[in-house]
Amino acid sequence: MMKLSDVSAILLKMDNIEILTHHYPDGDTLGSAYALCLGLQSLGKSARVILAGKPADKFNYLLNGVKQQDFKADNIVSVDVAANSMLGENEDKYIGRINLCIDHHISNSVTADERYVDGEAAAAAEIIFALLKEMKVNFTKEIADCLYTGISTDTGCFMYTNTTPETHKIAAELMEIGCDFEQINKAMFETKSRAKLRLERMVYDTLEFFCNGKCAVIYTTLEMQSKLGLGDDETEGLASIPRQIEGVLIGITMREKQGGTFKISVRTNGETDACEFCKRFGGGGHRAASGCAVDGSLDEVRSRLVAAAEEVLK
Amino acid sequence: MMKLSDVSAILLKMDNIEILTHHYPDGDTLGSAYALCLGLQSLGKSARVILAGKPADKFNYLLNGVKQQDFKADNIVSVDVAANSMLGENEDKYIGRINLCIDHHISNSVTADERYVDGEAAAAAEIIFALLKEMKVNFTKEIADCLYTGISTDTGCFMYTNTTPETHKIAAELMEIGCDFEQINKAMFETKSRAKLRLERMVYDTLEFFCNGKCAVIYTTLEMQSKLGLGDDETEGLASIPRQIEGVLIGITMREKQGGTFKISVRTNGETDACEFCKRFGGGGHRAASGCAVDGSLDEVRSRLVAAAEEVLK
Repeated sequence: MMKLSDVSAILLKMDNIEILTHHYPDGDTLGSAYALCLGLQSLGKSARVILAGKPADKFNYLLNGVKQQDFKADNIVSVDVAANSMLGENEDKYIGRINLCIDHHISNSVTADERYVDGEAAAAAEIIFALLKEMKVNFTKEIADCLYTGISTDTGCFMYTNTTPETHKIAAELMEIGCDFEQINKAMFETKSRAKLRLERMVYDTLEFFCNGKCAVIYTTLEMQSKLGLGDDETEGLASIPRQIEGVLIGITMREKQGGTFKISVRTNGETDACEFCKRFGGGGHRAASGCAVDGSLDEVRSRLVAAAEEVLK
Repeated sequence: MMKLSDVSAILLKMDNIEILTHHYPDGDTLGSAYALCLGLQSLGKSARVILAGKPADKFNYLLNGVKQQDFKADNIVSVDVAANSMLGENEDKYIGRINLCIDHHISNSVTADERYVDGEAAAAAEIIFALLKEMKVNFTKEIADCLYTGISTDTGCFMYTNTTPETHKIAAELMEIGCDFEQINKAMFETKSRAKLRLERMVYDTLEFFCNGKCAVIYTTLEMQSKLGLGDDETEGLASIPRQIEGVLIGITMREKQGGTFKISVRTNGETDACEFCKRFGGGGHRAASGCAVDGSLDEVRSRLVAAAEEVLK
């Protein structure tokens, strides 16, 4: 495997760099991409982030300090993208052209000239933190905000099993640099619109148990969304609900998307492997938190998921 | 103010020590008390924790490794107790006899021979961590579990504004010692009984807004509790619900207790001071999270609270 110093050397030789995020962009892919972009720009390079889908408004602060630069791209870097399909709308345009893939999903299968995958990192942002240090980037408050966002969101604010002592040490450093951890955590974890609140109440009514209570499923539909006037991104953050229930080993959240497909979030407890589960449906992720997309009607998709849960729990 | 080395010296001279917690015991008062107890026992001293009220079953692991010792108490130490009234059922027996008060509430007003109050500490457990180091206690996994519990619960898992870089550094050390942070966080934040889930749904239906949406109030009643077969401790952890709602500056949670009284939890956003608010009702705590108890019927108590909110928000 490449060392971080190799990754640093590759990046230092690059210029006119496009940085790719995964689709349905979350705090880690966005925080990592904008931190890397800020770092590269601070070294005098041209760089920009290429989004796959519009991020939620709550992430707008990640753009603070990012210069809008016009250039013809010479190099392509992906961050926190685990598989080609995760590039979403950018897949066709970019696959085959990625020079460097930086990721923390051990299942990573992105087509790229060089891949740096550190499965020990709780967030891709941890890798970017170490990388920017290696590249001798001066850490600004803006970079610290981006990296803290990635780390905090991917660890459920240091709650999930992927958190390590290193995660906390990095958080301490980012706080000392002056990151707005209060505002970030408030925005990421502690702010609900009234519509979101109503959605949660509605989602509670969809809760069903399977496999003797070991599997719990909730869902949102486009109809529920439009009834409440909610955007796509506002149906996020529900995934932790089913796993929290006592006795549940597999918590499944189904979110209906346009075009007859459901975005599925799987959260597991104990030894049950969410990544294995999602691989059956062409997805992937981490042991305790993974995702996939499944086409079909609500009942069809749920039946397939519950059948898979029954097998996995056997 | 006393230095930590003074506190250490006082404790090292003590023996046959009773350690007092506050009533409605939470993760910080319990984690601090049992960590101190384990530390003192490891130095060959006799020590025991005196609880004020029965803790929730989820805290049972904090007793791991604690020796049950029979002795006549010579010294009394309180931890995380902010005011005499917070001793609850132990107030009459112990006030006037406390030799050392260790706390992190700047509003501390406990009657004690010596008081060590560090308002910068996110949790009393941070003080105990530093104190046990000062006392050259050998940190076991059991002590680490207790201290992590105190820190994690009092900071909302590193989310709240009281978290500091030091908090993260201590967490990193406790993880390196081998604390079961996954199990602890799972038990503290990510486990809901089905009855608790039903309670949350019921509580959502009690939600009302006041002061142009800047104040939100939810409540539980004894009737709701008994309908769902929930113990007193299972009505905890609701306090974050009203503050999370967009636009809310004061989130109030009212929990009916036996004897015509309500336990009130107040959580605030921005500049609004929860401690100031609760002091009006004889309570106290921190700027963003405080508590008090108010006697009366549901409607009476709510009216008084909303009237106070109106004044504070003026």
